[in-house]
Amino acid sequence: MPQIVRFHETGSADVLKLEDLPLKEPGEGEVRLKVEAIGLNRAEVMFRMGQYLEPPELPSRLGYEAAGIVDATGPGVRDIQVGDRVSTIPSFSMGQYGVYGESAIVPGHAVARYPDQLSAAEGASIWMQYLTAYGALVDIGQLNRNDTVVITAASSSVGLAAIQIARAAGATAVATTRGADKKQFLLDAGADQVIVTDEEDLVERVMAGTSGKGAGLVFDPVGGALLTTLANAAASGATIFEYGALSQAPTIFPVLPALQKGLIIRGYTLFEIVSDAGRFARGKEYVYAGLESGALSPVIDSTFPLKAIADAHRYMESNRQKGKIVVTV
Amino acid sequence: MPQIVRFHETGSADVLKLEDLPLKEPGEGEVRLKVEAIGLNRAEVMFRMGQYLEPPELPSRLGYEAAGIVDATGPGVRDIQVGDRVSTIPSFSMGQYGVYGESAIVPGHAVARYPDQLSAAEGASIWMQYLTAYGALVDIGQLNRNDTVVITAASSSVGLAAIQIARAAGATAVATTRGADKKQFLLDAGADQVIVTDEEDLVERVMAGTSGKGAGLVFDPVGGALLTTLANAAASGATIFEYGALSQAPTIFPVLPALQKGLIIRGYTLFEIVSDAGRFARGKEYVYAGLESGALSPVIDSTFPLKAIADAHRYMESNRQKGKIVVTV
Repeated sequence: MPQIVRFHETGSADVLKLEDLPLKEPGEGEVRLKVEAIGLNRAEVMFRMGQYLEPPELPSRLGYEAAGIVDATGPGVRDIQVGDRVSTIPSFSMGQYGVYGESAIVPGHAVARYPDQLSAAEGASIWMQYLTAYGALVDIGQLNRNDTVVITAASSSVGLAAIQIARAAGATAVATTRGADKKQFLLDAGADQVIVTDEEDLVERVMAGTSGKGAGLVFDPVGGALLTTLANAAASGATIFEYGALSQAPTIFPVLPALQKGLIIRGYTLFEIVSDAGRFARGKEYVYAGLESGALSPVIDSTFPLKAIADAHRYMESNRQKGKIVVTV
Repeated sequence: MPQIVRFHETGSADVLKLEDLPLKEPGEGEVRLKVEAIGLNRAEVMFRMGQYLEPPELPSRLGYEAAGIVDATGPGVRDIQVGDRVSTIPSFSMGQYGVYGESAIVPGHAVARYPDQLSAAEGASIWMQYLTAYGALVDIGQLNRNDTVVITAASSSVGLAAIQIARAAGATAVATTRGADKKQFLLDAGADQVIVTDEEDLVERVMAGTSGKGAGLVFDPVGGALLTTLANAAASGATIFEYGALSQAPTIFPVLPALQKGLIIRGYTLFEIVSDAGRFARGKEYVYAGLESGALSPVIDSTFPLKAIADAHRYMESNRQKGKIVVTV
């Protein structure tokens, strides 16, 4: 019987349990993977704590991203065959289809082949980060070479993906990080400018770098008090994407700068892209092309074995990582 | 010497003083009006209190909207002639060009003729309300007959303008008001549905009226705690316009519904429209056509004489008015 990660109550990483569960068969439109690697996402930490967009039904599986080999397909699945080397695209309920485990069943539309030259760990580190950043910056934000993009929590996998996407468009990527310890890493990762928010004034630095205009795009998973600072650093007519809720503090809508500058502050998740067939297809094309050209290249911080899944979650919560945390199976 | 309203300190309506000031000559590109009527706006109350987007330089004039007869033009003014019957379009600094008084100088680009059949009081009640609502709902929001629009503070002049514009587009106008006393008035003014927020659950009512989908457009000058309620009543992908700051409470950015529904919450002022020549011209065309057809018809609550300007401000602050408060000169 495959080992599957589940939790029977919400809470700290301790609630994650490795359980032997019967091997299931894929249903209509579903495929089953023999999992080789799992990419971790902040969403799963939130889900485990009961703080995600979707509440868990206990006991609950979890996990959005896995790479593996298809070992069974359900009725009605086309284009995907047993033996295919694929990874999952988060376009499903993780409570229903959570991929943390040795075996995972997911909807057929939620898997895609990944380039041969990528490892399974890299294959599990593509879709959430690149489609999330692509959807905001390229699909909605229409990013171009004249834009300055402020990317907060820039050392996260999605933050690093946003830096790569901004650079690929010829735009100026301004990365923010709390402490100085990640500054050189972010410069090496492609940021044009790094603002260490514990030591530097974000608004001053952004204004200095944009001749006083401010940033036209902001990509932020933090919220809380930071949103007002970001609004003050934004250009007239700028769009600020809020794609997470990392801050525990209430997020104040910055009325004054929003009115003065006509700011668009919008909630955003990947689901906006993957729930629309056309936008989803264009996003996949974009990611494949970027991986092919080398403009996009996943950054893996570290790998943990499946039995250390709770440690992997604790490590993510420590915020020490620079890039993707992967569990190998 | 003409009587001009100024204030020497920010504060309550008591700070407004009627002063005899020398008649000034219009400068380059400016025109002078013999003022016949002044339309009051909430922005002027905020400005008087030092709470507006633009801080006053004391002593300060104030006022955005006046109707009158051009009695002098400065060098470089074309299209506008002495004797023209015009009203002002708020596209200037009210500290610099405030129109409260018997005489007002404004930039030539900020005046427009108004239809002959309108009184001066009506002429002073057109541009702020219709261009503000038009810019949000039509220019940006691309309002159409399938839309449901929630209009808060609906008894204000801009709220009533939004109701007329929504109806003109064949959309469903849902007006909200705090007390039941304005309900019949709002129905008579064209609202398809009126929600009395002191007595009814806004989210439930909007969901019931939209088969559970929610409203695609929200037009709100209140903010504060109301924004979260409005986000809960909004449809997936909806746009919420925040165009004022009537609430004294902090405005919380509703992270959860914003992410779940991909909500666009944007600051908005009329200046976004009037600072762009093409959008400004299209907006004027729209308003002229609506006044011509009768789809747009300004609602005047009451008129005050110039010497009672402080009373007029106090009345606006009482929130008892239904439509525009006008000062006749």
